[in-house]
Amino acid sequence: MTTPELYADLTRRLSDMTAIEEALGILQWDQEIVMPKGAVAARGRQMSTLAAILHQNQSSPALGGLLRRLSESGDLDDIARANVREANRDHARAARIPEELVRRWTALTVHAHEVWVDARKAQEFSQFEPVLTELVGLARQRAAAIDSHRPVYDVLIDEFEVGMTMARLDGVFAELKATLVPLIARVRARLAQGGLADTAWLQSPVSPERQREVGESMVRAMAFDFDRGRLDTSVHPFCGGAGTDDVRITTRYKETAFLGSLSGMIHETGHALYEQGRDRQLGDQPVSRARSMGIHESQSLLWEKQVGQGAPFWRPHYVRLQAAYPFLAAVPFDNFVFGLNLVRLDNFIRVDADELTYPLHVILRYEIERDLFSGALAVADLPAAWNAKMVQYLGIEPPNAALGCLQDVHWSMGSFGYFPSYTLGAVYAAQFMQTARTALDVDGTLAAGDVQPLLGWLRERVHQQGSRYPTDELVTRATGRPLDTAPFCAYVTDKYTRLYGL
Amino acid sequence: MTTPELYADLTRRLSDMTAIEEALGILQWDQEIVMPKGAVAARGRQMSTLAAILHQNQSSPALGGLLRRLSESGDLDDIARANVREANRDHARAARIPEELVRRWTALTVHAHEVWVDARKAQEFSQFEPVLTELVGLARQRAAAIDSHRPVYDVLIDEFEVGMTMARLDGVFAELKATLVPLIARVRARLAQGGLADTAWLQSPVSPERQREVGESMVRAMAFDFDRGRLDTSVHPFCGGAGTDDVRITTRYKETAFLGSLSGMIHETGHALYEQGRDRQLGDQPVSRARSMGIHESQSLLWEKQVGQGAPFWRPHYVRLQAAYPFLAAVPFDNFVFGLNLVRLDNFIRVDADELTYPLHVILRYEIERDLFSGALAVADLPAAWNAKMVQYLGIEPPNAALGCLQDVHWSMGSFGYFPSYTLGAVYAAQFMQTARTALDVDGTLAAGDVQPLLGWLRERVHQQGSRYPTDELVTRATGRPLDTAPFCAYVTDKYTRLYGL
Repeated sequence: MTTPELYADLTRRLSDMTAIEEALGILQWDQEIVMPKGAVAARGRQMSTLAAILHQNQSSPALGGLLRRLSESGDLDDIARANVREANRDHARAARIPEELVRRWTALTVHAHEVWVDARKAQEFSQFEPVLTELVGLARQRAAAIDSHRPVYDVLIDEFEVGMTMARLDGVFAELKATLVPLIARVRARLAQGGLADTAWLQSPVSPERQREVGESMVRAMAFDFDRGRLDTSVHPFCGGAGTDDVRITTRYKETAFLGSLSGMIHETGHALYEQGRDRQLGDQPVSRARSMGIHESQSLLWEKQVGQGAPFWRPHYVRLQAAYPFLAAVPFDNFVFGLNLVRLDNFIRVDADELTYPLHVILRYEIERDLFSGALAVADLPAAWNAKMVQYLGIEPPNAALGCLQDVHWSMGSFGYFPSYTLGAVYAAQFMQTARTALDVDGTLAAGDVQPLLGWLRERVHQQGSRYPTDELVTRATGRPLDTAPFCAYVTDKYTRLYGL
Repeated sequence: MTTPELYADLTRRLSDMTAIEEALGILQWDQEIVMPKGAVAARGRQMSTLAAILHQNQSSPALGGLLRRLSESGDLDDIARANVREANRDHARAARIPEELVRRWTALTVHAHEVWVDARKAQEFSQFEPVLTELVGLARQRAAAIDSHRPVYDVLIDEFEVGMTMARLDGVFAELKATLVPLIARVRARLAQGGLADTAWLQSPVSPERQREVGESMVRAMAFDFDRGRLDTSVHPFCGGAGTDDVRITTRYKETAFLGSLSGMIHETGHALYEQGRDRQLGDQPVSRARSMGIHESQSLLWEKQVGQGAPFWRPHYVRLQAAYPFLAAVPFDNFVFGLNLVRLDNFIRVDADELTYPLHVILRYEIERDLFSGALAVADLPAAWNAKMVQYLGIEPPNAALGCLQDVHWSMGSFGYFPSYTLGAVYAAQFMQTARTALDVDGTLAAGDVQPLLGWLRERVHQQGSRYPTDELVTRATGRPLDTAPFCAYVTDKYTRLYGL
């Protein structure tokens, strides 16, 4: 067969695998949003069957042979080469993980999730400890199967953020800590003085119907394409669906926290704009996929924090918002913006954390995972290590494990190495935003109610690029340099110094 | 491997195939109910990929070998033997149809459906004729691949109603015609005399919201399990979902035809009760599946017509119905029951037909299909044959092809041989109902608002039996004899003689 014939065979196989992944996306969405509760067991069977078929396809020796021949061919254009590179990575990982290990992993995580739910409810880490020990052990086996020459935790991180390593994260997180810990101390001191703007209005009750109405209008204002997506309500907000033409976001509504659902919708819309902005011609090929979890999070955080917690974005919408939420009539615009950026130093929960403390929650988890897999930390000592770091970084000690090391779902799902993506996203977002500001009048266009200039810049530099380049190259092409904490550090220092009059 | 080991291998494979079918069920439901319109092409890709994987699984030589060894084993119990028989049938069909033919068939039906939509809109059979000729040709090839020793049309019927043949249908339909044609003539004569109950109230407008409310209350009254199912709105009503624990029915609402959506909901609930009543322990195995399309239709029609158009079922609900639909206050209960059973002799459309004329619409289509595949009728002569039969059976001639031979979607989907199932369902329903009446006080319990005795009888005799027995054996076990038109003929003669005072 000629190279074009081989490549056509490859893209057909990859398209099939994407179709299975997309079907899984719909089954997942359906389960969260509309599935009758009696169908849980059947849905588990449907999803594990499709996941097994996907693994068989990805690990198939025929696919491996095809990829080898294409990797050696000199006849491919840049996009085809990138597509082969991405497919090769998926295949290599899948082929190295024995089916037996895949099955044990799936069974263990399903079980562990149930144990975690109960342990968290009982606020008892000791209930979760045995299964967490098993999970850590099996994650070690998985990592060793994938690449026995590299440190276990590097292999795990790599699943979510290709090419990222502990060596690099240690440096990045040290820089963030050096900025954030003293900055938070200054905010704390300022808070102790009192006399800051009143923010009691943040807890004014708003009906879910009204929140939905206002939220949807903001999602539309951000140019989410409702012909290629949906907005629904779920217990845990997420962005899912089935590929670039079927992007589904969800939110939840709490009556006394209207800003939470609003910023949640803006966050998920950021994810959705990335998915909807992918290259549609290559939509069924790996090369069009989102680059990494960190880059995905950069898009949600860019819109939620950099844009959605700034004055320019809200200026054209505030009169409308005041009309929808009458209690805002008494809240001056500057006070509203202060409320958007409120720092809460008594908060134990990562998902409720503000922009300033969030990275410290992530760094804490990163350090614990790193030490668990290096052997420096035993699973039994995890709660003590957690609490000590909470005191060290944030000055507060969780009163129980539910507010401490049992709060996150990730470990119960075996997602070790995922947490860093959140904060890498915040750092990338600041880099993208800083560069976008040099290319266009971001604040001016947002203040005029026009998201298209900023969205267009992101479409061209990030969304349409998909996985054409490794992460560092993508970021360098977009911003002139690879991962760099300086823009984020400058952004938070400047913003919070200003807001809190430090 | 021992027989139990071989059988365990088989059930695992069959469970996987069921899981793929169920995933397809969810993708189909999603497409009809919630999918954003821009996702049509992607959904086609997802569904055709899963369908191809299913075909590969069903036709796999490994499965064939397993089935051969198990078929020859004497160690299986009755249920296992029935399961092997059903699986063997699926495998044999799939293995005989070359993948190339599967692909051509799928591509042609997708294309034909588009052509049909346009031709129907234009009321021009000549636009549809070429692609219908192709479809008939490819259906011949499919049938020959499956079984070249039997008549083409018998092989096609067999896909929907296992074991049914033209020879048998000719007899059944002759019996029905002998009863229905003169009975309809007597109704026509009575209608010409005038003076029957007023039925103008049938067109009283009711809001979709109110119709939904009333309809859902009736679905609940029929013991549909909402923990294992849903009720939604769609353009074309259907019963779908993903297996016995996830049964999803839909309806549509027309403001000036409230009875249409109400009887539609009762019809789909009849299908749903069959699915929800299947053997849950064997839910992922072919042996638990609905026996055939004819038996499925018997369950929907038993509830829609035999139960839902009778006085006993409505007696305990009529006061509530009058409260919900105030215009019914002026309609005496007997008049309401007459309206439920109104015969419309000026109707050209099968899906709008009443209980008395519906079988003649089906027989007409059956005879045309039979003659198309025997070669007695050319595709080009189809409209003339259709219109001649309409005059012969119903005394009316369609003014155009949209009201004639272009009205149904079935041929555009290549579903030749499906139509007889509708009327077989009506015949089976009458048989089941006649026997149920000898076992329990059907009218008395329904009039007391209790569906459980009748439902329990159906559960035990039909639903839980699934595909354990061939259709004739199932029906004989339930009613003492195989397919028999006498109960249906007696039922319609008695009922319409009474209602119309013939």
